[in-house]
Amino acid sequence: MPKHIIIDTDPGIDDSLALLLAAASPEIVLDGVIAVHGNVSTEQTTKNALSVLELAGLSQVPVFKGCDLPLVKESLLSPETHGNQGLGYAQLPESATQPQLKHGSDFLIEQIMSHPGEITLVAIGPLTNVALAIRKEPKIVQNVKEVFIMGGAIQHPGNTTALAEYNTFVDPHAAHIVFHSGMPMILTPLDVTYQCIFTKDDLNRLLKINSPITKFIADSTRFYMEFHDEYQSIDGCVINDPMTLALTFMPEICDYQDLVVDVDISTGVGLGNTFGDFYNYEKKPKNMKVAMGVRPRMFMELFLERMEKLAQKNRDIPKTTVLS
Amino acid sequence: MPKHIIIDTDPGIDDSLALLLAAASPEIVLDGVIAVHGNVSTEQTTKNALSVLELAGLSQVPVFKGCDLPLVKESLLSPETHGNQGLGYAQLPESATQPQLKHGSDFLIEQIMSHPGEITLVAIGPLTNVALAIRKEPKIVQNVKEVFIMGGAIQHPGNTTALAEYNTFVDPHAAHIVFHSGMPMILTPLDVTYQCIFTKDDLNRLLKINSPITKFIADSTRFYMEFHDEYQSIDGCVINDPMTLALTFMPEICDYQDLVVDVDISTGVGLGNTFGDFYNYEKKPKNMKVAMGVRPRMFMELFLERMEKLAQKNRDIPKTTVLS
Amino acid sequence: MPKHIIIDTDPGIDDSLALLLAAASPEIVLDGVIAVHGNVSTEQTTKNALSVLELAGLSQVPVFKGCDLPLVKESLLSPETHGNQGLGYAQLPESATQPQLKHGSDFLIEQIMSHPGEITLVAIGPLTNVALAIRKEPKIVQNVKEVFIMGGAIQHPGNTTALAEYNTFVDPHAAHIVFHSGMPMILTPLDVTYQCIFTKDDLNRLLKINSPITKFIADSTRFYMEFHDEYQSIDGCVINDPMTLALTFMPEICDYQDLVVDVDISTGVGLGNTFGDFYNYEKKPKNMKVAMGVRPRMFMELFLERMEKLAQKNRDIPKTTVLS
Amino acid sequence: MPKHIIIDTDPGIDDSLALLLAAASPEIVLDGVIAVHGNVSTEQTTKNALSVLELAGLSQVPVFKGCDLPLVKESLLSPETHGNQGLGYAQLPESATQPQLKHGSDFLIEQIMSHPGEITLVAIGPLTNVALAIRKEPKIVQNVKEVFIMGGAIQHPGNTTALAEYNTFVDPHAAHIVFHSGMPMILTPLDVTYQCIFTKDDLNRLLKINSPITKFIADSTRFYMEFHDEYQSIDGCVINDPMTLALTFMPEICDYQDLVVDVDISTGVGLGNTFGDFYNYEKKPKNMKVAMGVRPRMFMELFLERMEKLAQKNRDIPKTTVLS
Repeated sequence: MPKHIIIDTDPGIDDSLALLLAAASPEIVLDGVIAVHGNVSTEQTTKNALSVLELAGLSQVPVFKGCDLPLVKESLLSPETHGNQGLGYAQLPESATQPQLKHGSDFLIEQIMSHPGEITLVAIGPLTNVALAIRKEPKIVQNVKEVFIMGGAIQHPGNTTALAEYNTFVDPHAAHIVFHSGMPMILTPLDVTYQCIFTKDDLNRLLKINSPITKFIADSTRFYMEFHDEYQSIDGCVINDPMTLALTFMPEICDYQDLVVDVDISTGVGLGNTFGDFYNYEKKPKNMKVAMGVRPRMFMELFLERMEKLAQKNRDIPKTTVLS
Repeated sequence: MPKHIIIDTDPGIDDSLALLLAAASPEIVLDGVIAVHGNVSTEQTTKNALSVLELAGLSQVPVFKGCDLPLVKESLLSPETHGNQGLGYAQLPESATQPQLKHGSDFLIEQIMSHPGEITLVAIGPLTNVALAIRKEPKIVQNVKEVFIMGGAIQHPGNTTALAEYNTFVDPHAAHIVFHSGMPMILTPLDVTYQCIFTKDDLNRLLKINSPITKFIADSTRFYMEFHDEYQSIDGCVINDPMTLALTFMPEICDYQDLVVDVDISTGVGLGNTFGDFYNYEKKPKNMKVAMGVRPRMFMELFLERMEKLAQKNRDIPKTTVLS
Repeated sequence: MPKHIIIDTDPGIDDSLALLLAAASPEIVLDGVIAVHGNVSTEQTTKNALSVLELAGLSQVPVFKGCDLPLVKESLLSPETHGNQGLGYAQLPESATQPQLKHGSDFLIEQIMSHPGEITLVAIGPLTNVALAIRKEPKIVQNVKEVFIMGGAIQHPGNTTALAEYNTFVDPHAAHIVFHSGMPMILTPLDVTYQCIFTKDDLNRLLKINSPITKFIADSTRFYMEFHDEYQSIDGCVINDPMTLALTFMPEICDYQDLVVDVDISTGVGLGNTFGDFYNYEKKPKNMKVAMGVRPRMFMELFLERMEKLAQKNRDIPKTTVLS
Repeated sequence: MPKHIIIDTDPGIDDSLALLLAAASPEIVLDGVIAVHGNVSTEQTTKNALSVLELAGLSQVPVFKGCDLPLVKESLLSPETHGNQGLGYAQLPESATQPQLKHGSDFLIEQIMSHPGEITLVAIGPLTNVALAIRKEPKIVQNVKEVFIMGGAIQHPGNTTALAEYNTFVDPHAAHIVFHSGMPMILTPLDVTYQCIFTKDDLNRLLKINSPITKFIADSTRFYMEFHDEYQSIDGCVINDPMTLALTFMPEICDYQDLVVDVDISTGVGLGNTFGDFYNYEKKPKNMKVAMGVRPRMFMELFLERMEKLAQKNRDIPKTTVLS
């Protein structure tokens, strides 16, 4: 039986790839997408989510706007990583469908509370909407099936500050609320995502299929690869978000540790640092499962095959509907 | 034309007195009451709000439950100040009416957005609900008429830590959100409230009227006075919240300064400290009006006269409905 | 019997006035002067101390160089307040005498340990040297007679940040060490010094005497007054340091409270905030006497009379030795 | 030509092993030992240093007392790791020699300044003395040959808090001063020391020689192994300090990275966290060489062979001088 999934996301290049992977994966049913601030403004992530879903043939999936600001910190967007529109060099036509009127956090609460134990939340942007939902309706904690989170860097360096990963740094207070909420969580930190590089070879394999899908992947990741090259000396790019989504139905991609994980919300250099208490002298209860090991090619093969299938299906869409 | 007022509150002894003053003041229309955690749990503050409104003859005013936890910090209740039920030695019968189903922050958003420029918010508890509403619907900032806040201690010592006032210390992150929101705010800090002592003489004057109202005031403030005597060597008690309400229709009780006010959300000894930037070397825009001077007896006379009138009106309620 | 005094100082305009007052006060014996970073570099404060002492006829008083950097924080000088050379518009000839070779903190330790119970320390700059001495020789805590400190702002706004006074903000960690050391301390915070304004009338009274002393006071305070006018809308200038020195022999200038005083060394907006724990719920032992009330003209009359006497004495010095 | 070495240390079980290794290593000349607070009080670490040096036949090496308290934080000793006397179950006779009168930080300053470019400092305890020396005489930064530091945990979990290694956590402010001083530093963090376990097999190999040296090693490490077993599930014990000393003359034991390393001195959960800025977006200059890879048996063989030689030499000391 397919998993019912809600994705909370700030597309964003790798977020978009996660949406495409969702469209290509029969193991899941996408019940809705919630947009959040992050890589670009919520206004823009909402538009991007709609456009990417349309591209993927998922126009029927409802999209909800969420919070446009971090809970407590000032806003921090990342145009240098994802481009001014959030999709690198890709330009998608505006979607014909509109976002829903309900606030994303209310949609999340209603879905979880009306389907207790059945909803899997995949949160691949800053955790603002999720935190807001928890504080508004604490009962979602007991009623959500599981929460997959892309975020944090346990023993890996941060990608935003020396210690902090981007999603967590953008809204560390939201992460603190979620991490301490008691929800059943599975974390995908940089420790595993940075071992899975989407390379030019991978891209060229996809480009053998001429399709709006592969063109989008090419245009968006080209920008992303330039960023990785310039700032992190990585040849290719790290596509964190689709890996997190993949774990919902193919958990064997990673190895997991049950850990005590916390996030630093102090005002010092450690702000947004996510860390495990490995020796755990105080014997605190483990609060999440953390992907600490990974089989990179297992994930990459899955991703490439699914993208190929999706691209095959969309091959006959007339090119003129895609701007470049 | 009377002001349309929503009170966000955690009754609480002085919160209850603010509700009584609202009931006794023709200058205002009470559109609704939102309960928040603070002095006691939200479960209990909701019950207390309902019971006090019933006592005051305001059963028709809708009561909404709000957040039960601070945004980021751990919960901090104050049974030593307000008693385990939040009303000191007073015991009110459970109200016949029920709280509304809608979340308090949603009620706040809807009222403000459907009556732009007309709603006065009086926030006399921790600011969790207000902060949540701002993050969920940022447009309330431009559409609320004004926000009266009981909280903070500008040049006065804190009443919870050396530096922090209770409402702000309980949820400093919420206060930070509200203070930086751009809403038109009027702050009533301890600097003025601690100059207005409700004394035993004041109480005795009220007790000349035999009424459930005066009995409630006596039973609740007796506990409160014991706290003030033991911890702060104050003879009488400080009734912060009704003063804040009074300023909505009798602003001349206080003198005000336009100030740059911020709240410390670091992890050090200053957590929850509200402070003004008096020299303001950086010329930041003033973000609120702060009551820094007060005419104590002007307020106290108003409060006593209104309570006397309310007690006169309720004199004929059979005593047996009030437990002690 | 005169008090044996060591002054730790960063001259600095008002520091220089404190040295002049020391020269003019028969109640004290100045055993030595230690220079510290602060208003300008230690290199410069050492030169200034030597020059001012020479001007005051105290060339025989040994001057010691101390630390040139705060303990932990980065250096923060204040040329905008005291001028690039630290003495405003005044320019004194270089002193004929040289600083001692011994480090200032070692001189402090040796004097205190060889004259137990007899040395009064007057610390009117950042507390770096004093803190270093305490950590190197903790026994000075029991053996110093008393420590007068110019620093902090208890209920008064800070003069450097919204919350912090300059000396404490420059080296809050040093202040933390000293405040928690157990030394017998008397604090002169901004709460009292900002009530004592040295006005143009005061200056004109001094200028009736034609002397290098009065010329120095005029040239240095003119700069200082311009700062006070521009940044704090004060007509005149606040001469914190000579008041602190005056309290060593004329304590009746101020009223004192025994208080629990701490300093914020967190990394947030409160860094360097000095605050009293007035309600002191935890009943911590009081760690210092704090001047909280002041008789401004009692101090100012003392200061002016002493300066007049000193100027009379120095009247016959040929003007050509003083640059302008 | 042998290196001239000063060891700053808080013996401490592994500190003692470093002293023994120094005694057994012809590549170095030990010019002096400075005691610091840490595992036990400075009073006790001074005694222990003297006794261990006597045991090792190095009674002629002068021992200096240093600071007994961290610069800013409260004292944190570790009797649970090293025993109440700091040497586990070992009990050494009190040394016949006395510590020098000069303060350890002054000895450090004098040696470095009188032998510019020639002194190698090996700091294997909290960095209080070194930080104090830097603030008192900043010129030692340019004149010390190199500083080997045992401390920190870069990508390894902390052994005291989730994020902090013991030496750094005990005095993070001192570490901050040293790390930012500009001294040429080589850091030995837990990342390498926790890969080198001194096992019972290693111990048994040493115990084949009957000597006060091997008896001391056995009695002290037995306690240490119990700690490692109970708290960290490690079979054997981690002897951090002798590895740091070994690197002074056998650097090939480790592989090094030039890194930007900082230490968290905020007041949050990250206090004492030492971390590298690996991506270094701001292109800060690298401030130290960090041992990030290690050949564990290369070190262990060196250590065992040297201990065997030392034990052989001390074999004929009459047992009765050793208490147990």
